[in-house]
Amino acid sequence: MKTHFPPNAALRTLLVMLMLAPLTGIAQGAGPLTIKEQGSFFVGGEHRQVSEPAAGVIPAQTGEITVNQMYVQYQIPLRGAQHVPVVFVHGCCLSSKTWETTPDGRMGWSEYFVRKDRAVYLADQVSRARSGFDPSAFNRVHEGTLANAQMPGILDATHQFAWTVFRFGPKFGEGFADEQFPLAAVEELYKQMIPDLNATLPQNLNPTLTQMAALGVKLKGAVLVGHSESGFFPEQAALVDPTGIRGIISIEMPCNTTLGAMQLATLAKIPTLIMFGDHLADVKAPFSWMDAYTGCSTFVEQLKKAGGDAEMLYLPARGIKGNSHMLMQDKNSNQLADLLIAWIDKHVEGRNGRTP
Amino acid sequence: MKTHFPPNAALRTLLVMLMLAPLTGIAQGAGPLTIKEQGSFFVGGEHRQVSEPAAGVIPAQTGEITVNQMYVQYQIPLRGAQHVPVVFVHGCCLSSKTWETTPDGRMGWSEYFVRKDRAVYLADQVSRARSGFDPSAFNRVHEGTLANAQMPGILDATHQFAWTVFRFGPKFGEGFADEQFPLAAVEELYKQMIPDLNATLPQNLNPTLTQMAALGVKLKGAVLVGHSESGFFPEQAALVDPTGIRGIISIEMPCNTTLGAMQLATLAKIPTLIMFGDHLADVKAPFSWMDAYTGCSTFVEQLKKAGGDAEMLYLPARGIKGNSHMLMQDKNSNQLADLLIAWIDKHVEGRNGRTP
Repeated sequence: MKTHFPPNAALRTLLVMLMLAPLTGIAQGAGPLTIKEQGSFFVGGEHRQVSEPAAGVIPAQTGEITVNQMYVQYQIPLRGAQHVPVVFVHGCCLSSKTWETTPDGRMGWSEYFVRKDRAVYLADQVSRARSGFDPSAFNRVHEGTLANAQMPGILDATHQFAWTVFRFGPKFGEGFADEQFPLAAVEELYKQMIPDLNATLPQNLNPTLTQMAALGVKLKGAVLVGHSESGFFPEQAALVDPTGIRGIISIEMPCNTTLGAMQLATLAKIPTLIMFGDHLADVKAPFSWMDAYTGCSTFVEQLKKAGGDAEMLYLPARGIKGNSHMLMQDKNSNQLADLLIAWIDKHVEGRNGRTP
Repeated sequence: MKTHFPPNAALRTLLVMLMLAPLTGIAQGAGPLTIKEQGSFFVGGEHRQVSEPAAGVIPAQTGEITVNQMYVQYQIPLRGAQHVPVVFVHGCCLSSKTWETTPDGRMGWSEYFVRKDRAVYLADQVSRARSGFDPSAFNRVHEGTLANAQMPGILDATHQFAWTVFRFGPKFGEGFADEQFPLAAVEELYKQMIPDLNATLPQNLNPTLTQMAALGVKLKGAVLVGHSESGFFPEQAALVDPTGIRGIISIEMPCNTTLGAMQLATLAKIPTLIMFGDHLADVKAPFSWMDAYTGCSTFVEQLKKAGGDAEMLYLPARGIKGNSHMLMQDKNSNQLADLLIAWIDKHVEGRNGRTP
């Protein structure tokens, strides 16, 4: 018996439609994802001379190590060249895992943006995760040439700390009635929380800022997205070198409202969106989310006064309620991503809702 | 004017061929890559009660943190279900970056195996990179409740150490004439070398072993690949729980030749491949590569005597010369990957070279 392949015309039509989708302007939804290119690389990094004590299988060494490099992992979709690339930088005590599969197993923003035809770059902050850190100060304390008091502090958030600071509910173990964070999967968030060694970094200029600016240049223009600890990093990176920064999205952090006129003039040239979730006044945190929100509102006004295209995206004002500090992992994370994508299309790419 | 789409029959045929490739047994080569599913998750992790000093924006805390979890990143190709998944675990002072884009910018084994229709899982060792680490001992030294001498040592390899131990050449800065490592890009390898905090782990049982065994079970069977520090981890994981371990590939490490009959009987049930590169006797390292090779040859014989399907893949014996310790990044890395894939097909999947 002779068989035809594909077995019938309907299947053939379906397959051709699926295949042509990336070529015909239909962004990829659920189902298989086609990547034009993916990989990882480092930005920056310099040599440092060290004397290290013996440890494990490695004897005492004198030589060089590389420090201050920033690890970046990326995916470029088939139609990625038609949009400005997006760089995501995670917050305190977290890694790029922030943007991947959510604690309850849904697609994270990293893949969602790729499916919306954006090239996506995930950076592990310098001194965190796959970027590594400079262990010199710890080794010097160990060998007794540096006082314990001089040892860099290690930031590590407890579950109890995260619950309220991330605004899951009014107190540990108790959720807000309209909470958007997937609390049933909170244990999976706790696993993402890792020690933050930023205190090991040069205190005059965080190398992550330098590398973010350099990454923008390397990409010939990118939207930088920061969150929490890194929320204001895109602005700070732009003050290092604005050349490659086409747009800024800052999510839930304190803003610097004391910038000078020259600095504001630099930032005012870059479209800026600042995003805050819900329940800002409803948790007792060691710092005030309302103060952060108020300060950032002032910063937005400063940018506007300097001629900038700046906007506060306060979700409750849009009728979107219950979002936590980890809003890229909240149950409505795709809806929030769509808001950011629409903002990029309009304010960074000037598409005004037109299909490219 | 009316246009037809696709514009002509030849293009249509080409497009249909490209699209059908994943369905018709043609593995994906260069060009776009289609992923059925990708993401990341953690294996294991338990709560630990801590009292932490104030650091940065975080006040002194008493509460719980999660430790000993293992971060895993994965990609499943369209035809992934037809093969046994492959789990890669990196070595000392490295992260899963080991398996990604090579220092000179070529495709790493992680993507290469996906293009050969294998589901690939990259694990950051517990206490490394995105898996995080337990900072308690450092914090206790900082606050003075633990003696400096009790502080865990931090393993960090210098460039000078790596050059000879990774067998790039006889001495720092000098390469072997037939060296396969892309020495012109060695700076990019140095950026991958990050502090190793394995000394912070429980000393009775490395949690990475437990999580590797659990990952095998979760995947309903996997080939575990270890390298260098983690080279013997697949065997050790199998001694924790062999249930999910369908095959073992151990690359360049010392083997334990003192296992008992019961342990060897357990391991003998799992097809095992051990791989070594070239120039084993040509560098002065703090430990001897020849001793490692000789010990592993003994181990292979022990497995065979116990009825096992075990094999030593010594590359120079196959006429493949000049491979370094970082052979997954060497210029002939695709050729080496093909050897591993052929071994998996034959010894783990019993395909004997047949197309599935």
